[in-house]
This record gives sequence, C-alpha cells and structure tokens, in this order.
Amino acid sequence: MNDRIAGIGNSPIRVVIALGGNALEEKGLPPTSQSQMNVVSKTSEYIARLSAAGYELAIVHGNGPQVGRILLASETASHVTPALPFDVCGAMSQGYIGYHIQQALRKSLEKLDRHLPVVTVVTQVVVDRDDPAFQAPSKPIGPFYTADEAKALEQEKGYIMKEDAGRGYRRVVPSPAPKEIVEIDTIKTLWDTTITVTCGGGGIPVIRNDDGSLTGVAAVIDKDLAAECLAEGMEADILMILTEVEQVCLNFNKPDEKKLGMITVTEAEQYVREGHFAPGSMLPKMQAAIRFAASGEKRKAIITSLYKAEEALAGRTGTVIVG
Amino acid sequence: MNDRIAGIGNSPIRVVIALGGNALEEKGLPPTSQSQMNVVSKTSEYIARLSAAGYELAIVHGNGPQVGRILLASETASHVTPALPFDVCGAMSQGYIGYHIQQALRKSLEKLDRHLPVVTVVTQVVVDRDDPAFQAPSKPIGPFYTADEAKALEQEKGYIMKEDAGRGYRRVVPSPAPKEIVEIDTIKTLWDTTITVTCGGGGIPVIRNDDGSLTGVAAVIDKDLAAECLAEGMEADILMILTEVEQVCLNFNKPDEKKLGMITVTEAEQYVREGHFAPGSMLPKMQAAIRFAASGEKRKAIITSLYKAEEALAGRTGTVIVG
Repeated sequence: MNDRIAGIGNSPIRVVIALGGNALEEKGLPPTSQSQMNVVSKTSEYIARLSAAGYELAIVHGNGPQVGRILLASETASHVTPALPFDVCGAMSQGYIGYHIQQALRKSLEKLDRHLPVVTVVTQVVVDRDDPAFQAPSKPIGPFYTADEAKALEQEKGYIMKEDAGRGYRRVVPSPAPKEIVEIDTIKTLWDTTITVTCGGGGIPVIRNDDGSLTGVAAVIDKDLAAECLAEGMEADILMILTEVEQVCLNFNKPDEKKLGMITVTEAEQYVREGHFAPGSMLPKMQAAIRFAASGEKRKAIITSLYKAEEALAGRTGTVIVG
Repeated sequence: MNDRIAGIGNSPIRVVIALGGNALEEKGLPPTSQSQMNVVSKTSEYIARLSAAGYELAIVHGNGPQVGRILLASETASHVTPALPFDVCGAMSQGYIGYHIQQALRKSLEKLDRHLPVVTVVTQVVVDRDDPAFQAPSKPIGPFYTADEAKALEQEKGYIMKEDAGRGYRRVVPSPAPKEIVEIDTIKTLWDTTITVTCGGGGIPVIRNDDGSLTGVAAVIDKDLAAECLAEGMEADILMILTEVEQVCLNFNKPDEKKLGMITVTEAEQYVREGHFAPGSMLPKMQAAIRFAASGEKRKAIITSLYKAEEALAGRTGTVIVG
C-alpha cells in the first residue's frame, strides 16, 4: 500500500466516511437481515482497503429504510407489546446496522492482514429545541395509514400526519440541524486504535433541557450533516461522503452536464445558489462538504462513490471541495 | 467522597458492574419505553455515586424482557416486514437499553458535578461452537405459540420448540459459555475516560468460523458470566453483581437461613456443591463470582443489591468472594 498517500511521517490522515443508503441495502431485494449483511460485506471490502492504506477511519451510516421497518414492526405489533418511540427505534437501528458493520468490516480487515477493532458507539446528537424545523415537520417515517387512522393518530398521539403522493398518510417529523455529538470526547480518543461506527442514521436526536440533561425527540437528522458535525468535533482531515455517483455534476442529466473535480468553497457555494443540487439528495451533501472544507485550514471534503473512494483519496477522481 | 475507598494514590479501583433485571424494569408496570427510562433513572443515581466516589466503572446489563419484546414485535409483524434473526434483536436491545443508560446516567453524574462520558459499545461475545449447550437448547425466548404453530416453525425455520408450563409452546435456544469479548481491546482503552456500557444481554453471541471470521448465532449468554469474562479481559479489580438481595444466603428462605459476608473461593465452591443456589438464578452469579475471584491475586467479587452497592464496595455489607 502507498504510505505516501495515507499520511506524512507519523501523522496519519483521518477520514470521516458517510455511507449512503446503497452501502447497506440493494434495491429490489427483500429487506432481510441476511440481504443487508451481504451488501455490508461488499461495502466493507472497499472500506477495509482504505484502512489498509493507512487512513484512520470513522464511519457514519444512514438508517432510513431500517428505522422505518423497526417502527413499522413496532406499530404493527402494538396490540401485543407497547410500541417504542422513534428515538428508541433510532437507537435500535444503530445497534442493528453497527453490529453488521462490525462483523463484516473486521472480516474484510483480517483478510488484508489489518488487525484493527471495529466498534459501534451508540450516539446521541444534540439539536436546538428552537430549530425552525420543529415548526415545519417534513420528513416522512414509518408505515402508511388511511385517512381515518391518520386522524386518530393525530388526536391520540399528537402525531403530525401528511398525505404522501396518493399512497396514504404518513407521520412526518422535523429534520433539525445537528449541533453537537454528545459522545464526541470518547469517540475522539478512539482514532488511533479503532474504527468507530458512530452517528448512525444521523444520530439519536436529543434536545438539551434547562438543567442540562438530554431528552430524545422524534426527529431525523440528516446523516451527512451529522457526519460533518462529527468530522469537525473529531478534528478529521477529510470528510468523505459516499454516494451513488463518482463525481457531483452541474446540470445533472442534461446535455450540458459537467462533472466537478476540485473546487473551492466559494465555487461550491455559488453552484448551490444557482440551484444545481436537489434538496434531500445532493444539496445536503454539498452543504455538509462546504461547511467542513470551510471549517479549518487544510480540511477538505470529498464526494464520490464507494468504489472510487480509494482513488478519490489519492486525488485521482471524486469531487473535492477545498477551503 | 471517600478517596481512600475509591483508590490508592493514582490507581483508581476498577469495577465491572452487572445490573440485574430490576435495574431496568419494574414488575407490574406496563413495559413501555418511558417506564424503562424511569427505572433506569433511579438506577443511575446509585451508579453515579460510585463514579463520584472515584471508582472507574464498566456496566453490563440484562436484556431478557426487552429482547423478548423486540422478537415478539418482529415476529408479529412478519407479514408486513421480514422478521429479524435473534442475534440482530440482541444488537437492537443493546442500542435501546444502552441509549437509556447513557442518557440517564449522564444526567445523574452531572447532578453530582461529575463530568464523565457514558457510551454504549455494541458488543459481540464469542462462544465455542462445540459448546455442549448447543446440543441441549433450554432458554425460552419470544412469544408463545399453539402446538400447530410450533410444529410449523420447527419444520419451516428449524426452530426447537418446547411446551412451557401449560402456557403454550416457545422457541428455546442454547445458553453457551462466553469465551472472549470481541471488542475487548477498545473497551479496555476507555477505563480512564469513560463509563462504558457493554456486553448488554450477555453480548451478541457469535461463533468463530474456520477462516477466523465471526457469525451470529441464536443463543443467550448469561449476563453475569459475560460480565465475568469482561472483567477478566478488562483486568478489573472488582466484579460487582447487583441483584435483588443485599447478601447471598445459605438455606435461603428457611428457618436456618444464613447470610454470607466475606467468604473464600474454596468456601463458595463448597456451598455450590452443597446445592444452596438455584440454577438460572443465584447459581450463575456465584459461578461468575467464584471464577473472577479465582482469576487473579487481589481480585474480588461482590454480590449485593443496587442500593447497597456503595456500602458493599466500602466493605460494610454484601457477599464478598475473595481468592
């Protein structure tokens, strides 16, 4: 492996990786645990190579489909056992997905003769209770309901229900911005010795009460923004957001589509203003990347695909945002 | 607080605490998340005092009722989303319970002006695939079924089903002995800086394959034996098993009942041979305590109640087993 790439002298390069949904689940296959483990195993082979190349890693992953199914099972079975609140479902999804990554990534590392522990830290992320997102819940979660069921849930549980593209009603929750990783001190101490899986699903959202204590809330934190918050807190060198495309595009899917290579924060901000990126898709990734690249000297953010991660770290592909 | 108790000079006393079921759930109350949080909050006040007294702590907890309900919800909802295997349910229960302990214990610590992170590490525990327990599954898990349903599950999924005291049929899984904590290296590095919640429910049981990789299995590891394995791996000074009684008794609930104070490993082994302790209840606790006390010089094991934990550490109560 190329030591020159992975670090200068005794100072390894520290990378926070945000894994996209396709790193955990293959579209079209039944969403079983075994199916997830198969996909995670493939994903792990690519991640393990980065570790073997000398990069120090922390891993953030999404949990949308998984937490949706946990909530669905919980609500469906509520006549036999009490349904669990959404923050708890999020904590459970961190256990589920983290366990699979621990097992699969360790296997891939061992194959490369890289003996490094992989652990999952159950992670809470503080959001501002005055975040305007709480006034405009927009993120659909869990099962579909009929209009009557939706009305009953609004009255009984205070849920906010919205009609979802003709397919029925779904509960919507706010998507506030991450402010602080509660477990950051511990996670930071693990850089040298451990690959840490953390902030799964964007972290369990909690608000800070007047007495300083924390309370879980029903909300979804964007996992790329959480990864950015983590990368700042961990003082990472690189935030690497892995998605389905090798490079971010201007005029995506149009005749004048243009792939972005290395760009500055200023350029990236301009492209955002010009409306090149879809909300809920590439936009939050670009916002996270910009924020991290702007947060400190020598920090950079990379957006690329899992399969090109190693090449992108070596500077040969990907969209790279620099300060 | 008494610094003399908590450590000599710069060498704090390191305690692995195994929390009993009553530390998480109150009998008779509906098993909701809120109800669990209320109990965990009370439990945390006692644990926080030990930390404030200077002890370094790691925490193991049971998960029987919780993982049973997760499995029940998963199986009940299997017509709408694929049921999850038992090892995954265990991982999810670690996320659920660990999250509550993190939140509640941190609050209790802050009240005592003790600023220490609390994190949960998703933990796998290796069991021997040749463990005789695999030939004699005995631990009932999850929901009750009719005889016909049980027969179908045996045929379709290969489950082993047993009639459970006239209440229907339940799946039984083996209860093998813990051999090794997979994440031990990382957990060990956290002693000084963090209270770590680990080996929840006895850990996610995994077997080691011929190529060295790990695979989850449907089994239940006794949480007190897992805590013992952890305490050895972490090189703890004390294994403290918290249960419903302040002291272990000989001739329990009989006219000649006798409370045990400080006893040697040899004495404890004799009481075990004499059959004083109930299998599945005090017996595994005594076995774990004996094993730890015998595992190294100056190591001791304490069995007491949550409410007497601080007094017992100070040598004023509890049953203490010394090598």
